[in-house]
Amino acid sequence: MADNNFEFRISEKDGKARNGTFSTPHGIIQTPVFAPVGTQATVKTLSPAQIEETGANLVLSNTYHLYLRPGEDIIAEMGGLHEFMQWKKPMLTDSGGFQVFSLSDMRKIDEDGVTFRSHIDGSKHRFTPEKSVDIQEKLGADIIMAFDECASPYDQAYIEQAMNRTHAWALRSKNAQKRTDQALFGIVQGGIFTEFRKSSAEYISSLDFPGNAIGGLSVGENKKEMYQTIEVVNDILPENKPRYLMGVGTPEDLVNGVLRGVDIFDCVLATRLARHSAALTMTGKLNLMNAKFARDHLPIEIDCDCYTCRTFTRSYLRHLVMAKETLSGTLISIHNISMLQKLMRLLREAISQGNLDKFASWFLSQYEYKKGKTADTILSDGE
Amino acid sequence: MADNNFEFRISEKDGKARNGTFSTPHGIIQTPVFAPVGTQATVKTLSPAQIEETGANLVLSNTYHLYLRPGEDIIAEMGGLHEFMQWKKPMLTDSGGFQVFSLSDMRKIDEDGVTFRSHIDGSKHRFTPEKSVDIQEKLGADIIMAFDECASPYDQAYIEQAMNRTHAWALRSKNAQKRTDQALFGIVQGGIFTEFRKSSAEYISSLDFPGNAIGGLSVGENKKEMYQTIEVVNDILPENKPRYLMGVGTPEDLVNGVLRGVDIFDCVLATRLARHSAALTMTGKLNLMNAKFARDHLPIEIDCDCYTCRTFTRSYLRHLVMAKETLSGTLISIHNISMLQKLMRLLREAISQGNLDKFASWFLSQYEYKKGKTADTILSDGE
Repeated sequence: MADNNFEFRISEKDGKARNGTFSTPHGIIQTPVFAPVGTQATVKTLSPAQIEETGANLVLSNTYHLYLRPGEDIIAEMGGLHEFMQWKKPMLTDSGGFQVFSLSDMRKIDEDGVTFRSHIDGSKHRFTPEKSVDIQEKLGADIIMAFDECASPYDQAYIEQAMNRTHAWALRSKNAQKRTDQALFGIVQGGIFTEFRKSSAEYISSLDFPGNAIGGLSVGENKKEMYQTIEVVNDILPENKPRYLMGVGTPEDLVNGVLRGVDIFDCVLATRLARHSAALTMTGKLNLMNAKFARDHLPIEIDCDCYTCRTFTRSYLRHLVMAKETLSGTLISIHNISMLQKLMRLLREAISQGNLDKFASWFLSQYEYKKGKTADTILSDGE
Repeated sequence: MADNNFEFRISEKDGKARNGTFSTPHGIIQTPVFAPVGTQATVKTLSPAQIEETGANLVLSNTYHLYLRPGEDIIAEMGGLHEFMQWKKPMLTDSGGFQVFSLSDMRKIDEDGVTFRSHIDGSKHRFTPEKSVDIQEKLGADIIMAFDECASPYDQAYIEQAMNRTHAWALRSKNAQKRTDQALFGIVQGGIFTEFRKSSAEYISSLDFPGNAIGGLSVGENKKEMYQTIEVVNDILPENKPRYLMGVGTPEDLVNGVLRGVDIFDCVLATRLARHSAALTMTGKLNLMNAKFARDHLPIEIDCDCYTCRTFTRSYLRHLVMAKETLSGTLISIHNISMLQKLMRLLREAISQGNLDKFASWFLSQYEYKKGKTADTILSDGE
């Protein structure tokens, strides 16, 4: 392990936003950063060579899925997740908490952990903070997450219980950690309740993790509630540690998150939309199933330099979509991830030039949300 | 159009086998050659960059599919098939005949052509030799095929009728051709009946196409019948024109076809098997779903230099298969096409060195068919 692992160095600031570098055993992450999601040790439909071509640097993978299939012991035996999936750059694994609560069947929560049934074969399993950290140590990502409970955002009484469990589990996750070459991040919970979020941010900060995450957002609350919650939490989280907004990644949320001091994002949106024929552009979304693209000679986005835009017309992409060829998902995923990488690059440049507010105002005013669409309609268009 | 288009030059011979070059507007094809199939203007799950990396030079696409979707006029408007799918090397389209007889619903054959219903939406369509050539001229492949009728191999009375129609349609296809920058190949039919095959080879040869094809094989007959039929036909087809064995492409059939003087092959086998977890190797087939590969550190084939074998273990590929990730189809397709390209290279080298018989005996004796498996069980394993 290099001595400077997990050093977070802020190079430039603009309002609450900041440019920085986070050093990991598999390389330096330039922040703010967007990470595409490789749920089952693969960013769906893309080879590692294709992911790399998008400019992505950090890739997320899911502990719950990999624990169930192929199993963390097999991945450890194969040399860890980087070696297994041949992604040699930085990786992050979540704790499995979110999937246990959103995907598994018949979960039963107690103070010690969660018992659940696999969504694949119904088999019974148990996650505790210690188990989650153990699995993540076997997977070997550069950034790993404390085990937490993500509750639905409006049930105040339940949210308080879940938050308190999350705090106890954060400490147990920290105490369970054996490897020193992985950065364990704590997770702030508390739904949309300001007082809960404040006390959660204070408690998680007190545990002095090398990075902190905001969990439990983009799960049903509205945009105003999401952005206010980010502000409340980021006012308390330490300046000198990276801040990770979990599972958030529409273009407008990336811009709004960066404006409020978020450094790391991940989301399935870019790739899930792609597999459902929707391309992200700097001005909105194109549904390539639309008949108007049948004879369109243009690429998805004229000034995009990704492989898809350098090579293919909308006409061809529409044909692949209509013919149900999975290559459409591959080619649109390449574009969508590239587009979000470009947006992050533009945000970093704006911070560097001290004109983030101006860039953000321009971007948000011309993006399709001005037409009354919200990120949620885009997301639910997808599946 | 360059002056030397469609020149077939034989450089070396070994028994009935020959090495040659066939010049097309999109480049020179080294023969014997194996062409992967891009049914709907895409070799399923692969980008053109990935196809090119396999070493493939000639790609086939299907007239029936492209006529139905997106339509030949759209492809013509987009600059032709090469431009549309961004495959800049040689291409071949079939006539649509085979698919009309195998895929479409409610087909009605008369001496003039075939009326059929689309397998996609049930709409009614009609193909004639003139229509097939017109579509293929709009698609713009380098090699195009005469419209033919492919009948099941054993019904002697019907086979004779279908063969006679195929002959009349071959002449009409030839007369319908307007473009001079596409090589139109005739197709020999006649089922498994030696006398029919002889008279068909004689008639098709008399039309003096720049290349000739053997159709109606690998449709239910046994290996002995297939190989005998190839011998009967190739003894009659002119030496100085390329010979194309349609829809045939198991490793053993490639070797046996080359031994009998075939120059061009195509088959969906390599890519269809890949999408069903089966990898082709020089010694047989691996089903990557097999539990024994769960912890296997080896690549599919140790001495293969394709992207998949240079990069991934069998363990990872098995995981992708079990997790139903389409990337498994992509990565195994890359390997399978690369493996057949390598086999063709080895066959060309053996011809060049005058030891094809020796190479073929070695290959066929060590390939898994010696264990009693046949190409057909491999094919039907696939789907």
